[in-house]
Amino acid sequence: MESKRTIPAMLTVDAKPYPYAFPPSKTALLVIDMQRDFILPNGFGEIQAGTGLEAVQASVAPTKKLLDTCRQAGIAIFHTREGNKPDLSDCPSSKIIRQNAQPGNTQHLKAIGDMGEMGRLLIRGEYGHDFVDELQPLPGEVVIDKPGKGAFWQTTLMDKLKAQAITHLIICGVTTECCFATSLREANDRGFECCGIEDCTAGYKEEFKCPTLDMIHWSQGLFGFVANLEPLVDVLSPYAPIPTAIGSTTPPQTPPAFDGDLSIAALQKAYKAGLSPLTVLEAVFERIEKYQKRDPAVWILLESKDSALERARDLTNRWPDRRRLPPLFGVPFSVKDSIDIAGLPTTTACPPLAHVPSKSAPAYEHVIEQGAIYIGKTNLDQLATGLTGCRSPYGIPRSVFNHDYISGGSSSGNCVSVGAGLCSFSLATDTAGSGRVPSGFNGVVGYKPTRGLISAQGVTPACLSLDCVAIVAGNVHDARTVWDLCNEFDTEDRYAKSAAPIQRHVNPTGPQAKSFKFGIPPPEALSICNPVYRRKFNEVVQGLQAMGGHLMPIDWSPLEKAGKLLYDGTFVSERLASLPDDWLEKNGEHLHPVIKEIFDKVVARQSTAVQAYRDLQAKALYTRQTEEVFAYSSSGVDVVVVPTAPTHWTVEAVLADPIAKNSILGEFTHFGNVLDLCAVAVPAGTYPVSEVQSNSTDQGSLPFSVTFLGGSMMDAETLEIARRFEEWISQSS
Amino acid sequence: MESKRTIPAMLTVDAKPYPYAFPPSKTALLVIDMQRDFILPNGFGEIQAGTGLEAVQASVAPTKKLLDTCRQAGIAIFHTREGNKPDLSDCPSSKIIRQNAQPGNTQHLKAIGDMGEMGRLLIRGEYGHDFVDELQPLPGEVVIDKPGKGAFWQTTLMDKLKAQAITHLIICGVTTECCFATSLREANDRGFECCGIEDCTAGYKEEFKCPTLDMIHWSQGLFGFVANLEPLVDVLSPYAPIPTAIGSTTPPQTPPAFDGDLSIAALQKAYKAGLSPLTVLEAVFERIEKYQKRDPAVWILLESKDSALERARDLTNRWPDRRRLPPLFGVPFSVKDSIDIAGLPTTTACPPLAHVPSKSAPAYEHVIEQGAIYIGKTNLDQLATGLTGCRSPYGIPRSVFNHDYISGGSSSGNCVSVGAGLCSFSLATDTAGSGRVPSGFNGVVGYKPTRGLISAQGVTPACLSLDCVAIVAGNVHDARTVWDLCNEFDTEDRYAKSAAPIQRHVNPTGPQAKSFKFGIPPPEALSICNPVYRRKFNEVVQGLQAMGGHLMPIDWSPLEKAGKLLYDGTFVSERLASLPDDWLEKNGEHLHPVIKEIFDKVVARQSTAVQAYRDLQAKALYTRQTEEVFAYSSSGVDVVVVPTAPTHWTVEAVLADPIAKNSILGEFTHFGNVLDLCAVAVPAGTYPVSEVQSNSTDQGSLPFSVTFLGGSMMDAETLEIARRFEEWISQSS
Repeated sequence: MESKRTIPAMLTVDAKPYPYAFPPSKTALLVIDMQRDFILPNGFGEIQAGTGLEAVQASVAPTKKLLDTCRQAGIAIFHTREGNKPDLSDCPSSKIIRQNAQPGNTQHLKAIGDMGEMGRLLIRGEYGHDFVDELQPLPGEVVIDKPGKGAFWQTTLMDKLKAQAITHLIICGVTTECCFATSLREANDRGFECCGIEDCTAGYKEEFKCPTLDMIHWSQGLFGFVANLEPLVDVLSPYAPIPTAIGSTTPPQTPPAFDGDLSIAALQKAYKAGLSPLTVLEAVFERIEKYQKRDPAVWILLESKDSALERARDLTNRWPDRRRLPPLFGVPFSVKDSIDIAGLPTTTACPPLAHVPSKSAPAYEHVIEQGAIYIGKTNLDQLATGLTGCRSPYGIPRSVFNHDYISGGSSSGNCVSVGAGLCSFSLATDTAGSGRVPSGFNGVVGYKPTRGLISAQGVTPACLSLDCVAIVAGNVHDARTVWDLCNEFDTEDRYAKSAAPIQRHVNPTGPQAKSFKFGIPPPEALSICNPVYRRKFNEVVQGLQAMGGHLMPIDWSPLEKAGKLLYDGTFVSERLASLPDDWLEKNGEHLHPVIKEIFDKVVARQSTAVQAYRDLQAKALYTRQTEEVFAYSSSGVDVVVVPTAPTHWTVEAVLADPIAKNSILGEFTHFGNVLDLCAVAVPAGTYPVSEVQSNSTDQGSLPFSVTFLGGSMMDAETLEIARRFEEWISQSS
Repeated sequence: MESKRTIPAMLTVDAKPYPYAFPPSKTALLVIDMQRDFILPNGFGEIQAGTGLEAVQASVAPTKKLLDTCRQAGIAIFHTREGNKPDLSDCPSSKIIRQNAQPGNTQHLKAIGDMGEMGRLLIRGEYGHDFVDELQPLPGEVVIDKPGKGAFWQTTLMDKLKAQAITHLIICGVTTECCFATSLREANDRGFECCGIEDCTAGYKEEFKCPTLDMIHWSQGLFGFVANLEPLVDVLSPYAPIPTAIGSTTPPQTPPAFDGDLSIAALQKAYKAGLSPLTVLEAVFERIEKYQKRDPAVWILLESKDSALERARDLTNRWPDRRRLPPLFGVPFSVKDSIDIAGLPTTTACPPLAHVPSKSAPAYEHVIEQGAIYIGKTNLDQLATGLTGCRSPYGIPRSVFNHDYISGGSSSGNCVSVGAGLCSFSLATDTAGSGRVPSGFNGVVGYKPTRGLISAQGVTPACLSLDCVAIVAGNVHDARTVWDLCNEFDTEDRYAKSAAPIQRHVNPTGPQAKSFKFGIPPPEALSICNPVYRRKFNEVVQGLQAMGGHLMPIDWSPLEKAGKLLYDGTFVSERLASLPDDWLEKNGEHLHPVIKEIFDKVVARQSTAVQAYRDLQAKALYTRQTEEVFAYSSSGVDVVVVPTAPTHWTVEAVLADPIAKNSILGEFTHFGNVLDLCAVAVPAGTYPVSEVQSNSTDQGSLPFSVTFLGGSMMDAETLEIARRFEEWISQSS
């Protein structure tokens, strides 16, 4: 038994000025600056304040109780830590000298960066800068290093909160008058509904605490709410795991059975309850073996069961305490064979290109670091060029729904491996739709972040400037989890994005939280879809409206024109730019015949540099026009919703007409990277095979999928709308 | 007499916890939210608070006194205004509903956006949202519309403060506990040294004021300083204009004579003292007429004196009160003839391209709006292609220093018009150095902002993706002033930049304020310079060190390689991308022969799209590598300093070898836009003509210039270092 009962969608705790209502799944505990430098004797705080250390120290125990309660109830945990880089480059000089500069100063004998008893004061990496022992973060909890008093200045806090779809903050920590209050005020401006916990915050000067808290809740909540610890513990503790499990570091005598659910959330829960990753891997390899007989084209290189089990044993040794597991502990995943893993060949389904890299792609490194277990490298359309899955020398993977139907590509094997339940998630790529289209044909989620949020280093380039690592997963929450763990600026990736532009606030409560604005392609653009897809898409649009979405008119033309640039214009020439000039000539005969035909056609076009620059200027124009579609105003939409593909071909149909059939599949994906959008393909029900094959006696069904496209860097918002749609469709079907 | 005496570099006012020292030229008064909605009865504030309106109203009179004092002392003035867009898209729903949602709420009967007695509450554009009559802003004062309580959230405040090189803030306004304190805390994190003025801030709840201010100055200034009004007035008032002038809206009986100084700051002061713009224009046209005889190649189209005087009279009628003049009132300027002015032909020095636009470039519109007076359109290298000034059918402008020497190009006429004192500033362009090189050859400042900060709409494209509007001015301060007024996001410019990435703090005081880090090209790169330039450059490097700069090693290679991309690679092909395919063929015979030769060579290269994409990938790589050069860390530099050009050719030398001589001139400018840097060319002394012409009996001198290059979007920081160098060199020469 994991908890007494399932936590409800909303909880309410007594608070000032009136009870604080919060959705636990969208609430984070924000623990401010519980560092040795502020809590222990002779730390920066005591040097700075010269008084009041007892009050600050007394807040540790209640804060620990709050932290434990929130952890057990599954509330997301964020810790902040004030401090500067060792070179002080992130510290304004005013902050260093103001307090020491007081004439006759006898109090501030040391400034930031000076040597104290616990290392250099407030410098990252020093002992004094770290959290007190009682409040050290657990794996998977977010740590935000902040140079200022406000937790949002020059930090990724806003991004990280949005990535987890957090809208409510329970705030505690030190000191009340300074970093606690400043951060709460910043959070309030950003739209977070905040509640400070009176017993779990303290400052060096007692007289400041009461007015600071009063200002928060005065006038019916000027900045938010203030509550006490005990009522909050009372509200949350019913949802904690049963007390006997707390503190136990060994699994129960009878480990729980594996229920077969490979979703990340389910595995996290099961591992915490004592399930062994070895049990999960046994099941996974049994499934893989069985599926190989049904579809032998999924994998290019499969990890041996022995080495996967070995990895699982290593993980268990490394993380013996099941209360402290990293988020992807024991989670099996596959990797597209155009993404480097050190020591294993990367083929990109093109044997003449095969090489054994010495360095793994950062995305792979990130998920491995978080405990995930690599299962194998999956098949793809050669050179990641194609949307059908029918262009590989390693065979043609089929849709998990129906063997006659294509899996889609180029990330064919990724999507089958997740769709068939052979692993929890998969690292794929997406340049023109390669992550989205096959997700749609296999009933899984395919998420293509804004270009540059996940490093594309270690990915064999298709169009270098457009290539994205995509995440294939069983549901939106899982895709978001993997993204959040891989989303780190990589200076080695020349197209990496380093910082969000001025960010939009969050809408925590009220009417705006339920509503969103969406656009769809005009009827003439949708006419490319087969009749079933048109019907299904109409149902989705009605569903989106039923769940609170407002359908808005949009200017479709920049998206349409941008899509045409990709293959009708010169952009396809970039696919040759990463290969030596004579490569095609030398290796043409080893290529898949369809790929060879495509590249020969590109060469035959003799596109000029002048045409390329015209296309790039056009791209810039359409990008700007698309920004208007997603504008932060009453006329802009939050998402554009499209069918992931216009139709689902049979393998036979594609083999008969490989290029034209492929091209049609990209109608609603091609523009995504050209315009630097983010996109999430989400399953949207099924339809009977008989509806598209009137003569068929097949009793089975085929999947339908829609893609939510969001503006550049609007990934968190777009994922959240996609997740809500997923939830809605699962409840309504 | 304008003021009793010149304001000193630093002033000090008694304050808590100890006297507050501030440099008036880098200090701004920040007036928070003195809006009718917060001050007048039945405004949002009274509805929200339900109490305490008297205290808030009582703060108006002292705030007015503070504002008047600061205005008269020449302190920069910033006003903030809280409010939301009419569609509420910028307002988190929590802010709208929290206060109304209190069970049994009887106080908050209306929320943001509801109709009140002064229009919709806190909605931009409504009467209640605007400032109270007593505290309305004057022309040139900055108004920041803020959606939150903190003045830095989702506003341009940080950008606007940095653009004026502000490091210290005097803060007043309402309400103390809310927007005043929140904004002061934000400002402190950002490095501003802040002083709140106790008598000029108030809130609705009296009990909150004292602890709010105490928290600011507690512990030797946790967030900053707190002072009283009267001591500050005492400190500032000696520098106000003499009392008899205050309140007078008509010029003195004897208007001051024009001292000939056309710098913007001097004209602002003179106009405030009663000088008529007609007097200035008379002098300007006299100078122009005289200079025409010396150099008839400066202007392509000169405004008639009559229409300029007419414009001056219009301005005087529109702005009768000389205390309330817009910043560019009566300031004469010229425009490169590749920038559109509605109704006038744009020739780009290429008659077959000439057209009469119906719309002016936004940069032109901005300066006109601020009262500047257009004088004429200036000559340029044809199609803005060239760095010599010798490629125009309208003649060859010469360096203002010496008739034998080139003016440089392509903005040849712009720089001569400013260098010869014919106008105060000039709107030029810069794609490969066109704004910088001729500035260097005419002893003026040439500033090329980061691409996209000033709209390049209405500029005849050279390389559309790289083209910048550049500002030519007599000094860095003037260039910065014009930039600040033109820097506005333009959705019509597809390459416009909309928002700053996470910004660096300012360093207001202490050792960091004096020091900066700079890099220079390696000796092998500098060897292209002539011996005099090498000597002068060494002197500059020594000077930069003497004024507090730290010379740091940098990786020069990405800058060098990026420069080569521009003409050795395919980038030059973009110059053809904006012209129809058959344009060259049809118009070649009408082109300047050197331009024709260049374009013929570009065509003959037959650059392919594949090559273009390779170059673009290389550009992305060098840009990333250059970000490391300017990294925000101990290893990064603030600026890279280079000679603006490696040598100064005679017209004769260029005419003998026009293409090779031109190419050398761009050695230190070509990479600037490729890498998306900002750059300011600054005069750096002169040298005798005899030093480069041993046989010459010429007693004159020639100018030397260095360029300060800063990272993308680091314009404000780069300008400030350039300004300090300018100040240093004027004092040391």
